[in-house]
Amino acid sequence: MGAGVQVLAVPGLGEIAAGDDLIALIANASSAAALAVDGGDVFVVTQKIVSKAEGALIELAGVVPSEEARRWADHWQKDARLIELVLRQSVRIVRMERGVIISETRHGLICANAGVDTSNVDGRFAALLPADPDASARSLCRGLVARFSVPLGVVVSDTFGRPWREGQVNVAIGAAGLMPMTDYRGQTDSFGRELTASAIAVADELAAAAELVMGKTSRIPVALVKGTGLGTGRERDGSARALIRRAEEDMFR
Amino acid sequence: MGAGVQVLAVPGLGEIAAGDDLIALIANASSAAALAVDGGDVFVVTQKIVSKAEGALIELAGVVPSEEARRWADHWQKDARLIELVLRQSVRIVRMERGVIISETRHGLICANAGVDTSNVDGRFAALLPADPDASARSLCRGLVARFSVPLGVVVSDTFGRPWREGQVNVAIGAAGLMPMTDYRGQTDSFGRELTASAIAVADELAAAAELVMGKTSRIPVALVKGTGLGTGRERDGSARALIRRAEEDMFR
Repeated sequence: MGAGVQVLAVPGLGEIAAGDDLIALIANASSAAALAVDGGDVFVVTQKIVSKAEGALIELAGVVPSEEARRWADHWQKDARLIELVLRQSVRIVRMERGVIISETRHGLICANAGVDTSNVDGRFAALLPADPDASARSLCRGLVARFSVPLGVVVSDTFGRPWREGQVNVAIGAAGLMPMTDYRGQTDSFGRELTASAIAVADELAAAAELVMGKTSRIPVALVKGTGLGTGRERDGSARALIRRAEEDMFR
Repeated sequence: MGAGVQVLAVPGLGEIAAGDDLIALIANASSAAALAVDGGDVFVVTQKIVSKAEGALIELAGVVPSEEARRWADHWQKDARLIELVLRQSVRIVRMERGVIISETRHGLICANAGVDTSNVDGRFAALLPADPDASARSLCRGLVARFSVPLGVVVSDTFGRPWREGQVNVAIGAAGLMPMTDYRGQTDSFGRELTASAIAVADELAAAAELVMGKTSRIPVALVKGTGLGTGRERDGSARALIRRAEEDMFR
């Protein structure tokens, strides 16, 4: 890690549609903004534009809610078609109470509404999470490394709530070209004693840092994080799956 | 939010002892490193040096473990005196299994070992969390605002684990001089639709961003985050308590 980290907004991407070439759009927007893209840098890309480019939008008019979805939606005054999508995207319900659904997606992510989201989407549609956010990150990493000819990392981010704490933070749901955790175990502290339980989820911290320049309404879906040196350009380095706790080690199933 | 955020390490603080004047040390270290401190900037200060300066270290030799602490420590091969401190610092045990204690501190924080920590501390001692991290942040904020004559924010940070996800991230356990949450509810998205459930825990994101320049072993306990404009200098603005979910709204008690 260097002495300083810079988080830069990548402006001017515009509205993303299915089939858009995100690699070209991100590279061109970075160049147009005269951003210096250097080896070790990391692009953080919000899930929403990845989902849009990959066509992971569902037209609500075509969704037929199940009996369960209708009952829940009626009770909590929700759109039954959205609830139906949430249930379909869930492999396990963690909590379903007070109008809130926390569930596990088939990616293993545990989040509200299985990542189904209608914000910043044409009102007739709902956005799903990308089918394989790590694969999305790998594809972006490969393309951006080729375009800039330097080793880079890519994080695909989404904003998640947390147990016990208010507010949402941006986390990494996909990663490539960087090690998502920095493991300090075996290293020594300033008193020469071995650190025993310190692995930092740097991919989540990169996502969180990126959110500071993105905002929810400001149309900045991509940030460039410079100065960490975390980007390796090796697309097989890292996977956001490594950030998901295995069921048998999770005390909060 | 501007187009860019900078996270700068504040180097050269050295080892902190009880009674040290953190305000003077941070201000002098910032000046010595020729860091420009501007209105709106936020200092992120790790809990460990706040605890050390406030003398929140306990000499383990003087701790007499209870029967419960001894039994648990024996079973999991832990130091019974540390377990005793963890239990004393806890107002409620959330999980106590597999050698791990997740508990609620009297501050309302839910974390491993009630924040009791022996890393980066002289081996004869354990560090507790500051008695009132918001008060610590207010004091630092007042002093640093006076010293630099610009409105600043202060976050006191600690690294916490999370349910469901591997690795730790830096979060805000104390805050002053900034609003810890940015609430987008009522604002409209890029399609003109009202955002209904978006409050971002920016104080946690600032803490996470700061960790990227701190590292666990690199002796950088303070970072300066520039470019967010979040620092207001009003020491009563914000409290990390606002980031703690109220018991009646918490589905993961």
